[in-house]
Parts: sequence; structure tokens; C-alpha cells
Amino acid sequence: MTDKYVVGVDFGTLSGRALVVRVRDGAELGTAVTAYRHGVIDRTLPASGAALPPDWALQDPEDYLDVLRAAVPAAVADAGVDPGDVVGIATDFTACTVLPALADGTPLCREPEYADRPHAYPKLWKHHAAQAQADRINALAHERDEPWIGRYGGRVSAEWEFAKGLQLLEEDPEIYSATARFIEAADWIVWRLTGAESRNVCTAGYKGIHQDGVRPDREYLAALNPGFADFVAKLDHPLSPLGARAGGLTAEAARWTGLRPGIAVAVGNVDAHVTAPAAQAVADGRMLAVMGTSTCHVMNGDRLAEVPGMCGVVDGGIVSGSWGYEAGQSGVGDIFAWFVDSSLPASYTERAAALGLDPHEYLTELAARQRVGEHGLIALDWHSGNRSVLVDHDLSGLIAGLTLATAPEDVYRALLEATAFGTRVIIDAFESAGVPVRELIVAGGLLKNALLMQIYADVTRLPLSVLDSEQGPALGSAIHAAVAAGAYPDVRTASEAMGRVRRAAYLPDPDRAAAYDALYAEYRLLHDHFGRGGNDVLHRLRRIRNEARKEGTA
Amino acid sequence: MTDKYVVGVDFGTLSGRALVVRVRDGAELGTAVTAYRHGVIDRTLPASGAALPPDWALQDPEDYLDVLRAAVPAAVADAGVDPGDVVGIATDFTACTVLPALADGTPLCREPEYADRPHAYPKLWKHHAAQAQADRINALAHERDEPWIGRYGGRVSAEWEFAKGLQLLEEDPEIYSATARFIEAADWIVWRLTGAESRNVCTAGYKGIHQDGVRPDREYLAALNPGFADFVAKLDHPLSPLGARAGGLTAEAARWTGLRPGIAVAVGNVDAHVTAPAAQAVADGRMLAVMGTSTCHVMNGDRLAEVPGMCGVVDGGIVSGSWGYEAGQSGVGDIFAWFVDSSLPASYTERAAALGLDPHEYLTELAARQRVGEHGLIALDWHSGNRSVLVDHDLSGLIAGLTLATAPEDVYRALLEATAFGTRVIIDAFESAGVPVRELIVAGGLLKNALLMQIYADVTRLPLSVLDSEQGPALGSAIHAAVAAGAYPDVRTASEAMGRVRRAAYLPDPDRAAAYDALYAEYRLLHDHFGRGGNDVLHRLRRIRNEARKEGTA
Repeated sequence: MTDKYVVGVDFGTLSGRALVVRVRDGAELGTAVTAYRHGVIDRTLPASGAALPPDWALQDPEDYLDVLRAAVPAAVADAGVDPGDVVGIATDFTACTVLPALADGTPLCREPEYADRPHAYPKLWKHHAAQAQADRINALAHERDEPWIGRYGGRVSAEWEFAKGLQLLEEDPEIYSATARFIEAADWIVWRLTGAESRNVCTAGYKGIHQDGVRPDREYLAALNPGFADFVAKLDHPLSPLGARAGGLTAEAARWTGLRPGIAVAVGNVDAHVTAPAAQAVADGRMLAVMGTSTCHVMNGDRLAEVPGMCGVVDGGIVSGSWGYEAGQSGVGDIFAWFVDSSLPASYTERAAALGLDPHEYLTELAARQRVGEHGLIALDWHSGNRSVLVDHDLSGLIAGLTLATAPEDVYRALLEATAFGTRVIIDAFESAGVPVRELIVAGGLLKNALLMQIYADVTRLPLSVLDSEQGPALGSAIHAAVAAGAYPDVRTASEAMGRVRRAAYLPDPDRAAAYDALYAEYRLLHDHFGRGGNDVLHRLRRIRNEARKEGTA
Repeated sequence: MTDKYVVGVDFGTLSGRALVVRVRDGAELGTAVTAYRHGVIDRTLPASGAALPPDWALQDPEDYLDVLRAAVPAAVADAGVDPGDVVGIATDFTACTVLPALADGTPLCREPEYADRPHAYPKLWKHHAAQAQADRINALAHERDEPWIGRYGGRVSAEWEFAKGLQLLEEDPEIYSATARFIEAADWIVWRLTGAESRNVCTAGYKGIHQDGVRPDREYLAALNPGFADFVAKLDHPLSPLGARAGGLTAEAARWTGLRPGIAVAVGNVDAHVTAPAAQAVADGRMLAVMGTSTCHVMNGDRLAEVPGMCGVVDGGIVSGSWGYEAGQSGVGDIFAWFVDSSLPASYTERAAALGLDPHEYLTELAARQRVGEHGLIALDWHSGNRSVLVDHDLSGLIAGLTLATAPEDVYRALLEATAFGTRVIIDAFESAGVPVRELIVAGGLLKNALLMQIYADVTRLPLSVLDSEQGPALGSAIHAAVAAGAYPDVRTASEAMGRVRRAAYLPDPDRAAAYDALYAEYRLLHDHFGRGGNDVLHRLRRIRNEARKEGTA
């Protein structure tokens, strides 16, 4: 019997990657990447050259199709497999990346009369211009005590569907009314592959406020804006569980991809969530941390709980049959990068270069020689706010314990540790809410830093496993493709066979863990003092700063 | 009538400087510097090669005499004046720099049998190995409620005479008992010039616990250590007021210096205090801040008060007829230097070099473009502890408000501001104790930084004047020489004629001052929270650090 293959396609912020995987064991056989021609559209609209306001971030959906046309056949060629042996394809996407479309799925930006209208384009996840709408959505939800707000840690993000939809209505009502379908790119790409609309439970739950079978009601929406009362009609569609077959590959999509028409196409998914089965992080209590510039945590639990500060909890949001929890840290790798960019003296840059090391590697090597607490520092990792239990984007970072002997590697290590303490705060919140965390599994670019991994194990006192693939999301999509194709009965089983993890790659050291307990206690004290109003100085500094800047431009 | 001249000699940490000054108007006519051949002896004793313990700092008194032999004649030559027209000489010294001597003033280290004994050498001001003795001195003083302890802000320094004397007794009792005179280098150098011992009120008061005519009593000293009961006998001598004639120049000293035998030699003085008349900072309420790596504040007041955290208050300690107050900030310029050394990225170093600027100048130029509060930061300037109102050397620095957009010039400006806030805390403490501060007069290397000066004026809301001489201490000594020579009736009058100050060089700007009031309120909140036990995290971090380091060496 010949081997069968699946293709996973991961749509990122700047490019899409296709990965060809063997169904039997998850072996990764070939891969290819296609960069988006338009990248992130955040300055001027290509069609008209018109300048975009600050905080906007759009994309061009044609770039997504290019990935299907280029990366998929290239990956199959790279794998050297017969395209006829590919039995399924699945995709994952950044989220919430959402676009307005006609009833047949045509993006409004493809209609010539709307091509020069910014609101006709997909709004990328990091489009942050709907904050005013999000603030009203949250305030009204708390005012009316909406049942769903607790499922999102008390705060819906400006990045999500309702905020972006309300901004669309209020800033370009003509486009809003021409929008028959307001759809996640995650679902739109599947529509392009199968020829029929489908909607996945994951984005509907985490980004579309779908809870217990319903979305926010008409009355609430009308109170936000009378014109918004029927917004849900643009979203509603039967939801499909993750790993389900959305349909068969159309003849057109088969031409794009070089794959056989009719093969299984899985329902849409999100990049972080789809990584859980790739890292075998699907059992309840196995927390996957996707660690890059920021960290996204996803974890299954056997019960519904409201965890302070979580981003969301969705029934089947990661894997059918479990409650899927999502949480996050808004600044992690970007804090380390900021430090290296803004604070590394020339002597260090030169020595690192002389040793053939990247500055992060060099600092890590120096920091790794230290004992816990030897630098005498403690930091708060709030350089881009806190979206964990405090959910407060106006907080900022702090470092204490500086002396004239404090060296760059001291501060660097303190920053690594601060993000680990931030993770422990999240884990503690889960534990306190009755959702136990038993293992930490790390994916993402930062897992290469062995010191950072060991610190996370020591600080959390959890065994730490690492994803054993360079292509977590694409592998996760491939797993979903295999399930959609019927090769495995469900995602859990497929994950067992195809996922790749180095289990317990780092174990907590009891002495270091005990030493970190003392530092974590200090972190918590500062965290609560500066984050919960003991001293509201960080907010006042932010306000003073903003006012000073306003005067500066006046 | 021909002009008369005086010579001021400033003995610093690494060198001595002579300055020839015209008596009539203080014009500086010639100067020369002689570096100490042995510099600071802090690693091995030159005579024996023996290693010194940590925190030791010694000097060789022969180096001081070299300054008289080299710098003085060179300065006179540089001035182009007739040595016969020099009518007086005066000196100032670092303090407390103190040495053991025979009854005739011969330093014990000059005796061949003691040349290899570290305790036979002068202990420089920054010899910090007597901390254990200082701790006992302070604890016992508070236990016994000694009347003098309040005159030192509640804490006697490890740098001062009693701590260094007690260390001498306890670590080398033979040298201790061979010590007939335990004498400040400030007084010892005058002994060398005049041939007779004299003691000045300034070092006796600030460094030798001489208050209301007495020193700590036998009973107290015996309780510290029975062998210490008679320590005061090694110090006692009639005290001379500042500006008094200690004696006439000996024939030997006349040969060294090339000056006429018999000319007036003024009593000893201290570098910071002697600068007050040079900067015309002698009227009550004019606070002189000598700003360098650290800052020393000296100010006259018309009444005796106990100001929390002051270093000392001495009757006539700066100028006869006023109470002389001394206070300080342990870290100022060294914090800015630490930042530039440890935290300035290569891109800044390169750009500064391309512009032909020193990194401090470049950062200052960037920081000067900002509005007050625009950086969103607040810092505590405790990188080398706090010796102001908190008098706590185990505190450490802190910075809050960091974001991913925080640039080096932001942090640099926040550090400049933090030291200004630190000065305002001191001024507030004087005001609260009923000792008003009406003007800030700055001397020292940092006065070149115009942004820093403006920040100090804005933060303190005081008119800020600057010393208008490159050689403040030497000019101050010259003023004292003129008084000792009888050219002026007193130091105040001589200061009027010979001192050099740019009065009100910086004035507070009302808008910026108001903006700084808000930031100072934040500084005070953090200052009190972290400095007065609200959260003792800085001490705990220090303890954790010290323990981790100890383990590291075990």
C-alpha cells in the first residue's frame, strides 16, 4: 500500500507556507513559502495611493490565493511526491483577520467601484483603529451585564470581529451595507478551496463572540448603534468543528494547487490553535505557549471556567470535546529585541560579532553563568502593556535593583525572567479558577533559547516540552487535513500519530525553583502594587506623556 | 602699589593642583597639577607588594609633599609673578583622609619598621573597610542616645575618623598604640608647611565628631572597645577657625615651594567646603552643590537644626559665625556615566562620534528636545544607595514607565531628572527643619551640562547660579590664604572680592516647574514606598544577590 500525504497551509502576516506531510507518521517531506506581494498595507492603499490613518493594517486577498497557486505546488514538488497521493488540504490563518464579501464570497475590494475604499479590504489582525468601538462594546457589555463578556476575561479586543464590523459601519456605511458576508480570512480561504461557505467554531468563538450557540443579541447591538442591530446576519452560518471536512477541492482550486479535484478540504483554523495538535498539546492541562514577539497560550480543559484575563474560552475551540482556553502575554520576544536594539553597548555588539554570535546568543551565554538572583534585579514585563490577568494596555515596564555594577546581561536575564513570571501569573490564574495546568509545551521562535526554556521550567515548576518541528502551524493544519480526509477518526488520534514534541526537554531544578519562588513573590508584589491601583503611577505617567506629546504637536 | 598674590593648593584623590590668584580681585593667573606617584593604593602595598583586602584605599604622604615641591613653583612660574609678592598659601584636602603619626607629625608609614604595615598609611576618604566599625558606632550611639548622633543625620560614616580609628585599633593594635597623633591629611599638610600642629574646625566637626566643644566621651568609647577609651587623646588639639593663620611658612617649606619663609599659612580645609566662598555661596540659605560623580551640598544657616539625612552640621564648619550644613547624594554623575558605559547602543556611539560629540553631549542634545514628561518615565537615583534623607546604602535604582518605544535619550533624561528630584528631597528636608534654601549654586564638572542645570532650576524652583571658575577648591583655598595673610578681615569679605559666580545663570520656567511638580510627586511616592519600608523589595533583592554571590564563590 502506498503512502498518502496531506498539505497544510499556514497563512501568516507577511507570507504563506505550504508543507507536505506523510499521513502515516507526520514526516515533513517538502515545504515552500510565498511572500504576499502587498505585505501589510498600512500606509497607502495601492489601488488609489490614498494614505491610511494611523493604526490601520489591511491586506489584499489576492495575495492569499497566490500562496495556493505558488507555495502549494512548490511544496509538493519539493517533497517529490505524486500529487495524486495527496488526500487532503487544510489551512490556518492569522486571526482575527476579517473581510467584507458579497453573498458569493467575492471580496468587496475586488469590485471595481470599491477598490479605492480602505474599508473594502481585509482588516489584518493587527489593525488597531477600532479601539474606540471596542471600548464602547466592552463598556456596554458590562453595563448590560452581557452573559458572554466573562468568557473573554471581561474584555473584547479591538482586533476582533465586532469592533472591526462596528468601525466599518460607522466609517463607511455604504461598504457596510454592501457587505453580505463579513468573514474571517480563515473561512474565506476555505470557501475559495471548496466553492461553498463554511465557518469554523474556533474563530466564531474566540473572535466572533459565539457562545452557547448564540451571538450578542439585537438589542445589545442596536444600543451600540441602531444600524448595527442586524450585524450578526452577516456572520451567521452553521459552524463546523475543527478537523471536519468543509468540502471537496473545486476544479478551479485543483488547477491552482496542482492537487486532485474533490480531495478533502478541512474547515478553517487559527495559527496558534492549530499548533496544539502539532505539539501534541491536546490533552487537558497541557498548555501550549507559542512564544514569539508576544506569547499566545492555548490549553484544553474539561470544564468551563471564567479565568481572569484570559482571551477567551470556547467549546471545541482547540479540539472538539474540550473547552479551549486562550490567554496571552502582549510583550515577550519584542521586549528582548527592544533591549538589544536600544540598550546594548558597542563593546558587547563587537564582542558578540567577534565570537560569531548573534547579540541575543551572546547575552544569553553571559546570563546563563549567573545564579538565580545574582543580578539583584526584578522587572515587570509590561513594555507593551499587559493582556494577561490585568488586561491593561496602558501599563508599562519597570526594573528595580539597578546599581552601578549592573551589566547588560543582568538586565537581559531579568527581562527573560520577568516574562517567565508573567507566564506563571497566567498559570496561577488558571489553577485558581479550577483549571489545572500540568505541562508547558513551547512552540515558536523563542524555543531555541535554552536558557529561556530552563528559566520557564524553573519558574513555573512544570516539565517543559518543546515542539519538534520548524513548522508548527503548517504541521497542525496537515494534521487537520488528515482528519478531514478520514485518515484518522479525530484530531486527538491524528495528533498522537503525526504531532512532534520533545517531551520534558527541560525539567525544573528544585534549588533554582525555590530561589525563583522568592523572586516571583517580589514580582507579584510589584505586579499587584502597580497593576491593581496600589500606586497608579504607570497610568499617570502615560497620561502625562500623552499630554506632553499632544502639546508638542500643537 | 604692587599687586599681592596668594597660592591655593587643592589636594584631590589622584593629584594636587596649585593656583596663583591675585588678592585684589581673585584673578586666576597661573596653575599647575602634580599627579600622585602612587595614586590610590588599593590593591597592593608598594613597600611590600602585599595584597590589600577589598574596600581598602590608602595613599602615600610623600605624594602630597611632591605637590608642594612641584605644582606650587610651577604655578608661580606659570603666573609670571614674583614669588616675593606671594603673601600667603592655603590648602584644602579630600576628607576624611586620615593618617597615624608620631608626636612630631612624622607619618608612621615613614618609619622603616612600619613601612610594610597597611595600617601605617593614610586611609583615603574612600577606604570603605571600616563599615563593621561604623555600624557598631551608630548602633551604640543610638542605644546610648548620644547627643551628637543627631548632628550627623543619625548616622556616622564608615569613612570618618572614629570608624577608621577603631578599625586601626582592632586590626593592628601595635600601630594604634604607636600612633601619637591621628590626624586629617588636611591638618597634616599644614603641619608640614608651618612646622606646628594645628587642627581646623571643619574636619574636626564633620569627620571627627567634635560638637559643642567636646568629642564622644570615654565611657562610650570604652563600650565600643576598652582599648578605644583614650582615642580622643590622639585627636585633641585646640581648633582653629577657617581662614585663620595657622603659622608662618617654614624655611624648609619655603625651599620646597619657592615662596618666602614666614608668609601666612591658613589652617586646613576640605575641598567641598572651601569651594563655598569661591562660589560666593557663603550667605545663609545659599546652597552650594558640588556636582561630580556624587554631589556634596554645603550651606550656611543662622540656626542649629537637625535635618534628617544631613551628613553633618558644624558651628563655623564652612564660615565662622554660621552653622555649616553638609548633605549629599551618593550617585549623580556616576549614574550618568554608568548609563553611557552599560546601555548606549552602538548606533548612538557612532552617531555621536560622527557629530564630534562626547556621548553625554549627544544624549543631552537629544534629551533637550523633549518636553517635560514626554518620555513617560520616572527613575529613582539610588544606583549607589541613598545618603540623603534615607541614609541607606543598600537601596538600589529603579526605572518605571518603559515601553518598546523608550529610547536611550529618554532613559538618560529620566536619570538626569531623578538626581534633580533627589536634590529637591534634600532641599525639602532643610525647609521642613526650618533652614530655608534660597538659591542653588553649582560647582563641579557637571555644571557644563546646560540641560542638567535647567532641569535643576525647574525642579527645585530656585534660581541657579554657577561657579565661574574652573578651579573652585583651589580658588577657595586662595581666598582663605588671603584672609590668613590679613588682606581681608574675614572669609565673607574676601569671598565678595575674590569669588566668582554667574548669578542666576538659570531661572526656573513656570510651566516646566509646574510639570515637574507632578513628576516630583510621583518620585516622592516611589521614594517613600521603596525607601521607607512600604515595599522592602530593594533590600530583599540585595540580600538575595549577596547570598547568590556567596554561594557562587563557595
